Amino acid sequence: MAWLAPPSAGPVEEVPVDAPTDVPLPVEDEMRGRSVLLKQIQEARKIIERHQPKSLAVLGGDCLVSLVPFSWLSERYGDRLGVLWIDTHPDVQTPKQYTNAHAHVLGALLGHGDPDLTKAVTRPVPAKNVMIAGIHDPLPFEAQFIADHGLRTCSPQQVRDGAQPVMEWLKDSQIEVLAIHLDLDVLDPHNFRSLLFAKPGRGKHDFGDVAEGKLNIPDVLKLIQEVTTEKEVVGMTIAEHMPWDALNLQEMLKQLPLIGG
Amino acid sequence: MAWLAPPSAGPVEEVPVDAPTDVPLPVEDEMRGRSVLLKQIQEARKIIERHQPKSLAVLGGDCLVSLVPFSWLSERYGDRLGVLWIDTHPDVQTPKQYTNAHAHVLGALLGHGDPDLTKAVTRPVPAKNVMIAGIHDPLPFEAQFIADHGLRTCSPQQVRDGAQPVMEWLKDSQIEVLAIHLDLDVLDPHNFRSLLFAKPGRGKHDFGDVAEGKLNIPDVLKLIQEVTTEKEVVGMTIAEHMPWDALNLQEMLKQLPLIGG
Repeated sequence: MAWLAPPSAGPVEEVPVDAPTDVPLPVEDEMRGRSVLLKQIQEARKIIERHQPKSLAVLGGDCLVSLVPFSWLSERYGDRLGVLWIDTHPDVQTPKQYTNAHAHVLGALLGHGDPDLTKAVTRPVPAKNVMIAGIHDPLPFEAQFIADHGLRTCSPQQVRDGAQPVMEWLKDSQIEVLAIHLDLDVLDPHNFRSLLFAKPGRGKHDFGDVAEGKLNIPDVLKLIQEVTTEKEVVGMTIAEHMPWDALNLQEMLKQLPLIGG
Repeated sequence: MAWLAPPSAGPVEEVPVDAPTDVPLPVEDEMRGRSVLLKQIQEARKIIERHQPKSLAVLGGDCLVSLVPFSWLSERYGDRLGVLWIDTHPDVQTPKQYTNAHAHVLGALLGHGDPDLTKAVTRPVPAKNVMIAGIHDPLPFEAQFIADHGLRTCSPQQVRDGAQPVMEWLKDSQIEVLAIHLDLDVLDPHNFRSLLFAKPGRGKHDFGDVAEGKLNIPDVLKLIQEVTTEKEVVGMTIAEHMPWDALNLQEMLKQLPLIGG
């Protein structure tokens, strides 16, 4: 994704991540790859502390890439920070429901869930400062969490219709600056295929029948452009890029005569 | 595609191509962008003549990227050169049937079609030295051309079943070395989406109901691995890469706060 992005005006850093192997990371105390994730969280924190940024952008990586940057922004801006979570899923599960921490991130930012994640969040974001846009059909645990904490949401249809719940949230609140998390899974996998859900040859039920994205790139851009006319953006993260074609083409090129060597 | 490919062991050159604009190139004397294409053909020829290669690989670009390299190999190897054209389409049309020269390339290599293309082919490839693999449902003009010139073909199903027509062709002929053209359109656009035919939101009939690819990457790799056990490969070209997601993501990144600048 960095290769596709315009050149950055500010400093650029890369959080060191080991290349994946064919062997899945082990589940440690109900979280897959717990020790690896904690190491990455610490590395990200070190990099951010070195720069002490007022604003930052992140090209991920899974949804967990937003944990440390948004935690940093929360420390810096306190109640003035709003979090716009553009995602099909609310990411409020805990290891009790699901062992993959990429679905725990917003919960941890709110101060809930696994202690290894919540301890990275010195100043949790108040629930009233959070809006989840593009969400639909949450799992029962997620729906209950949203109700219990009074989290605001905006459905894909509402996003397309002008995102009124988002604009009202910004108006009602004391929010002055925004951190925007964009999970690319919010996009319709029929039109943007560099997503887990667009895995070539997948079966209909291969991903546990969780909700899949219903928005398109113009919908997301319109939403973001609308909020940026109201508030300054101090955080922008993009997560869950899974470029199947590029991965498959890269493997093919390696095996072709004259090209693969 | 060069970004995805392994590093090259030999010299690397880039044929200069102007960045596309929103305005289509004009049709000149029945060929779209004729003067631009001729300039690219001349540039490619100059680069090849400078290196005088015994073998070469090309990352395209449309199917026309094979014209000058395969013409060069035909001059160099004469009747000892075989051309394996892995493609859903035979690429033997002329400006009379279709103004886009990417569908004229194999015809020109055989010495037929538009004089501006055929004059780039000093030594045409004999029809008996050509095999089209992965082809199905040719247009009436194409089917007639194939019959008239006795071109050999291998259907997608035959490729999957071991590509016997290809192996017999290699055995029957005097071919000693191979130039392989791989049009990515030979791939099933449901499984590899970086293709014209996989355009997001396309209508069923948007591409004139021409044949679409039926093979998958493993089928193509198996075919190529089989022929390379028999013959040395001296040319390998890859054409028609159209990475919709990367193009759309790149445009989106330009418009995002903090990232787009």
